[in-house]
Amino acid sequence: GSLSEIPCVINHESEVSCRRDESEVYVPFSFIRSYFEVYGQVEERSDGREVFEWTHSYSRVYQPHTPYLPTNTFLNFELYNVEARDRVKCISATEGVPISTQWQSTGYTYPIQIAQFGWWWTRTSTLNFKTHESPSKGGVTLQLDEGVTQNLLVVSVKLLLKGNSSLTFGVEFKDKKPEVLKIHYIKSERLLLVKDRQIYYGLGEQTGWRHITRNVLIDIHKGAAASPSLRKKFKKVSRSKVQVSWVRVQGEGEVSSVTLSSAEHLQHFYDAADWLLRHQDHRGGWSIPVPRKVIGGVLELEAGWYSAMAQGQAMSLLVRAAHLSGRPQYLAAASRATALFHTNSTQGGVRTFFPGGMVWYEEYPTTPSLFVLNGFIYSLLGLYDLKEYTKDNNSSSSSGQDTIADRLFREGMRSLKTLLPLFDTGWGSLYDLRHFTTHVPPNRARWDYHTTHITQLLLLSSLDPDPVLSSTAERWKDYMNGKRAKHN
Amino acid sequence: GSLSEIPCVINHESEVSCRRDESEVYVPFSFIRSYFEVYGQVEERSDGREVFEWTHSYSRVYQPHTPYLPTNTFLNFELYNVEARDRVKCISATEGVPISTQWQSTGYTYPIQIAQFGWWWTRTSTLNFKTHESPSKGGVTLQLDEGVTQNLLVVSVKLLLKGNSSLTFGVEFKDKKPEVLKIHYIKSERLLLVKDRQIYYGLGEQTGWRHITRNVLIDIHKGAAASPSLRKKFKKVSRSKVQVSWVRVQGEGEVSSVTLSSAEHLQHFYDAADWLLRHQDHRGGWSIPVPRKVIGGVLELEAGWYSAMAQGQAMSLLVRAAHLSGRPQYLAAASRATALFHTNSTQGGVRTFFPGGMVWYEEYPTTPSLFVLNGFIYSLLGLYDLKEYTKDNNSSSSSGQDTIADRLFREGMRSLKTLLPLFDTGWGSLYDLRHFTTHVPPNRARWDYHTTHITQLLLLSSLDPDPVLSSTAERWKDYMNGKRAKHN
Ligand SMILES: [Ca+2]
Ligand SMILES: [Ca+2]
Repeated sequence: GSLSEIPCVINHESEVSCRRDESEVYVPFSFIRSYFEVYGQVEERSDGREVFEWTHSYSRVYQPHTPYLPTNTFLNFELYNVEARDRVKCISATEGVPISTQWQSTGYTYPIQIAQFGWWWTRTSTLNFKTHESPSKGGVTLQLDEGVTQNLLVVSVKLLLKGNSSLTFGVEFKDKKPEVLKIHYIKSERLLLVKDRQIYYGLGEQTGWRHITRNVLIDIHKGAAASPSLRKKFKKVSRSKVQVSWVRVQGEGEVSSVTLSSAEHLQHFYDAADWLLRHQDHRGGWSIPVPRKVIGGVLELEAGWYSAMAQGQAMSLLVRAAHLSGRPQYLAAASRATALFHTNSTQGGVRTFFPGGMVWYEEYPTTPSLFVLNGFIYSLLGLYDLKEYTKDNNSSSSSGQDTIADRLFREGMRSLKTLLPLFDTGWGSLYDLRHFTTHVPPNRARWDYHTTHITQLLLLSSLDPDPVLSSTAERWKDYMNGKRAKHN
Repeated sequence: GSLSEIPCVINHESEVSCRRDESEVYVPFSFIRSYFEVYGQVEERSDGREVFEWTHSYSRVYQPHTPYLPTNTFLNFELYNVEARDRVKCISATEGVPISTQWQSTGYTYPIQIAQFGWWWTRTSTLNFKTHESPSKGGVTLQLDEGVTQNLLVVSVKLLLKGNSSLTFGVEFKDKKPEVLKIHYIKSERLLLVKDRQIYYGLGEQTGWRHITRNVLIDIHKGAAASPSLRKKFKKVSRSKVQVSWVRVQGEGEVSSVTLSSAEHLQHFYDAADWLLRHQDHRGGWSIPVPRKVIGGVLELEAGWYSAMAQGQAMSLLVRAAHLSGRPQYLAAASRATALFHTNSTQGGVRTFFPGGMVWYEEYPTTPSLFVLNGFIYSLLGLYDLKEYTKDNNSSSSSGQDTIADRLFREGMRSLKTLLPLFDTGWGSLYDLRHFTTHVPPNRARWDYHTTHITQLLLLSSLDPDPVLSSTAERWKDYMNGKRAKHN
């Protein structure tokens, strides 16, 4: 039927032109969009049908599909993280790390951005594989997903060598006549041996935990060079023709996580980790060299402040660097980074307290406190990574730090689980608690921060069974589809 | 132009039929209404024009136009209060108070409802007038607003009699030949005297504070009966023909607030106050004789619980009863009602604490705590009324209670000003903090509770200059018109 025009008076204040028929009034979406902050556009479906797609939020939740491990990929930073969009002036040629211009146009190093720059380059490189079972006679084989391992020819494995254990990589040669090359790493003092088209590298006779990182392409090139039967086909085989298919462990021993990367990924990753090593100061921190105005005239930080989020993200990166490289310096630096968690914001540290003595680690350690949620959780993940990795690899050198990171993590989690509901508005989440501490209006989290919150909570709920984490995450997902908490 | 149909896909879940032209998509209001909980209807304007009235909320804020006084009308209970809608079975003929059926169908007395029943009957009866200045030679005259005093012929005045002070009511006789009758209350042992068509009642020779309540209609009837010149016209004058126009004080002395009521109002008011006197128990409380399930299986109260709101509302009523009657029993009962504010919920009292030691007086003293906002503020108003009235009328008997109510009020206000932001969602308010204490979803306040919050905050901001009270009230008013706090 045809519709007539009717003016719509909005809250006695303004008018919008609407349409009506006998039983219905139609309101223009352009008004709805700005009034309610929803999204919509006409889209053509594959069958040619045009529909109007109404979406309550513009952001998507990342549902982690693998358990969180301190040696694994750090969340999905390439997909959602807001911080990663900070303006980057360039990548420093001296140090290989990004230079930020977000808060100062001349440029400065921002430790959070540097850590995330490190993640970026390892983003698809780590696989989830962990067993402490002794490999049976036939061995334990990890089949790798073809889509994931493309171009990733640097393999890292943590291996506990006991009796006569060995490690084998199965490498697919993609050609008209495909074949699988086997590269073995065995208990032997022999350097290199090729037999029956199989390549053997000696790991020495030493037992105990070993961290093995091999560039498979180079191991093939060198093996082929030493073998008349392989030489022609494989001495200069290009990286695009080979792909790691599986990793097998045989004999007595244990294998910890397996990581695949590209040589380029690793280079940037270590550039970031090494920058953190070089620039950690005597307080164990990476101070931010530019001022930060959170609320102009009310909440400001002078240049040289520390961020619990920066400390945490640095820890997470350094733990992974320690894992991939086996170098203890990285772990020691991660341990030193906990020191600022014992110093209050008012004393230049990153710690504050919510009434009742609940500790909070501040992304922006202002006075009064800000209680930023996402930055706090990132700091908890850094502490988690450090305490878990140290526990799993209980190196005697950091056993004291193990206890410290563990305690900081547990106290922080207690605060999080207590205070999390205060960030819940019944239709979205709050970015921080500035309204509580400074009496300004509540600072609503925009949708991409809201999804960050959800992703973080889903991750934490895999580490801690407290239902407040999972139920809040599920409710906050509902809010993204326009559902709200009930009113009384 | 004519519009075509286009399906609108809502959050990938459901479809709604919309309309479109070249540049706009029109969404049916029936969908908008339920999705966003807004209100709207077609209305005809006085000029015949039809408009669609879109309103974000269904409730209106009451803006108090007179300063809040413990002797004044208690807010605007007849206009907005939600509690007043509790189902009433009947008014008890034995005790003259309402019997509630809200939580138990057989009926029970509910002290909050009884106190509010008392307010109902005094709802337009009290005027704002307070001076401690000595009346000059010409006297101090309070002109009364005609619209307010209609049918209110019971006048109560607190008067400090010093030297030769007197009080006069000017009563308008509404007739073809209107005239103003003057009724004087003078320092004299004479009972009644009429001279020059003016009526004089003797107050005795006693000096000091006096509480005078006069039924003006009866004083006219009796005065006229004693005077040949007035008898015919005024001996049986009906209440509809006379109205109090002004109150004047002359000579040396002070006058405190002036209250007008009707005899019927007062009867119900005292029925409520006397019920409170009779039923106050040894703990100073009025226990609620029915159980209350706040969240079934999680937060429940057994029959016999006390409510800080009931205690507070009773205090507010008793203070006004003490003021109107001059009877000290009412004030003593109000003072005794503070005792439960010193006992924790877990011990059968009404007190709890937010982390950090901030006290809260509980409308529903569950364990874990509920932190209901509106009930807490009503309890604060009861404490305020008691401490202010006791201070102004510093009767030696309750000087200890003065200090107690004052301290309870100050501590409660400190908590309120600290915790108020936690009830702010950036687009509405929360009814309580159950999500914080029990991890259920936040309990959004529906609009009539939201307006109750605003009215209460406006009132408190007239008593306390802390900007958190007024700025929150103003922001919460904006929410009612669809405005929201910004996101980051
Ligand atoms: Ca942040
Ligand atoms: Ca209530």
